[in-house]
Amino acid sequence: MVDHVPVIILHRPQLGENIGSAARVMLNFGLTQLRLVAPRDGWPNAAADTLSAGAFEAGVEVAVFDTLEAAIADLGTVLATTARPRGMEKPVFDAASGVEFIATRGLKAGILFGAENHGLPSEAVGLADAILTYPVNPAFASLNLAQAVGVFCAAWGSNAGAIGRWAGEKSGVDDPAPKEDLIRMFEHLEEELERAGYFYPPDKTPLMKTNIRNAFIRGNWTTQEVRTFRGAIKALALGRGKARVRRED
Amino acid sequence: MVDHVPVIILHRPQLGENIGSAARVMLNFGLTQLRLVAPRDGWPNAAADTLSAGAFEAGVEVAVFDTLEAAIADLGTVLATTARPRGMEKPVFDAASGVEFIATRGLKAGILFGAENHGLPSEAVGLADAILTYPVNPAFASLNLAQAVGVFCAAWGSNAGAIGRWAGEKSGVDDPAPKEDLIRMFEHLEEELERAGYFYPPDKTPLMKTNIRNAFIRGNWTTQEVRTFRGAIKALALGRGKARVRRED
Repeated sequence: MVDHVPVIILHRPQLGENIGSAARVMLNFGLTQLRLVAPRDGWPNAAADTLSAGAFEAGVEVAVFDTLEAAIADLGTVLATTARPRGMEKPVFDAASGVEFIATRGLKAGILFGAENHGLPSEAVGLADAILTYPVNPAFASLNLAQAVGVFCAAWGSNAGAIGRWAGEKSGVDDPAPKEDLIRMFEHLEEELERAGYFYPPDKTPLMKTNIRNAFIRGNWTTQEVRTFRGAIKALALGRGKARVRRED
Repeated sequence: MVDHVPVIILHRPQLGENIGSAARVMLNFGLTQLRLVAPRDGWPNAAADTLSAGAFEAGVEVAVFDTLEAAIADLGTVLATTARPRGMEKPVFDAASGVEFIATRGLKAGILFGAENHGLPSEAVGLADAILTYPVNPAFASLNLAQAVGVFCAAWGSNAGAIGRWAGEKSGVDDPAPKEDLIRMFEHLEEELERAGYFYPPDKTPLMKTNIRNAFIRGNWTTQEVRTFRGAIKALALGRGKARVRRED
């Protein structure tokens, strides 16, 4: 029935206990794909095993990645969980509406959770299609990592029927490109902007990059559109030379 | 809107860690009354303190009772959380509809959670007005106690509405720029691509332009994003000259 079970991605998790607890609550609600980006204490992890209550043997599969970019490369929808809205130009969902959002898009989805101490860095949030946030008490907003995973998984479990309902529907627009293509496009654009002296002053560069990425990511570009725009970047970066050559003919 | 913040009741809890984690997630979602029925390791409990992340100091009040009857004596609505349908003649709710049920009744409410090993005894379920159950994976149904508390608290927080709104802080996406701005941006981009020799062959040019415009228009860019990108186009078109000049300095 449910075609696209979301992937849970923990970015630089610190405590094995939280990884194990996250795996347990994932499987409680039928999620089985766990990705770890650079877990502090390596993998496998004895504390994770203990707290998992057998979830790894019972069905949760773990994949470990060095970078977030690699961990989301094959995904079509990424939600970044954060307690603060961040002032980014992205849609913001609570757990229930986030589940509906990924179901409506009908693409392989991943939910991104930050480290226990610092949450997600802005660059990581910048790679997401939308922000997932919970209606927490502003005076005591820091959820335990595994609890944050649990709240999403429970919402997904409650709405799993809706996912089946939405999975087949398609809009007039082709599927968005895999994140890998988009990331390469960003790198290409930023590299050329860098060479062109666009990023100034240097301390504003990360924010400028994030703002540009946020603007582009909302368009849900298809693979073809990414390819087209990369051609345009290349033309802008190199083309004036070419144009001059032609004029000299 | 919701006047009566529900009480969380843990029936014969075993591990202090779970009591502390439950208190933490309660306060995350604005719940502050925790009742313990005959906690195995007594009260206070050092492990509970550690896992609470300061929730007891920050607002969660604990009351300890010898019996369940005493713990629910002053309540008007009691929900009993259980993974298995007990074949009891009681209404059964999931977290969201359970929250609505207690709000509709408008009475002081308590949510009852069983011990880690055995859950709630049937007598305890028998004292409840309704059963609260989550849509768990039947093959891996046993939730961690604090996770079970967390799922309810998150549902309550989502329904209480008022809690999680950061007054003043910007979230979500600004209004899209007026089409006029967007059209000027397109013209700017196309002009530079034209000069760069990007549009070839000539009879494909209108289609290429339309495809690029379609990709950009879906992003619903704000005025600020349009301005940012026009700066980027300019940098790409002119910047290589600048960069060359700098290198020659």
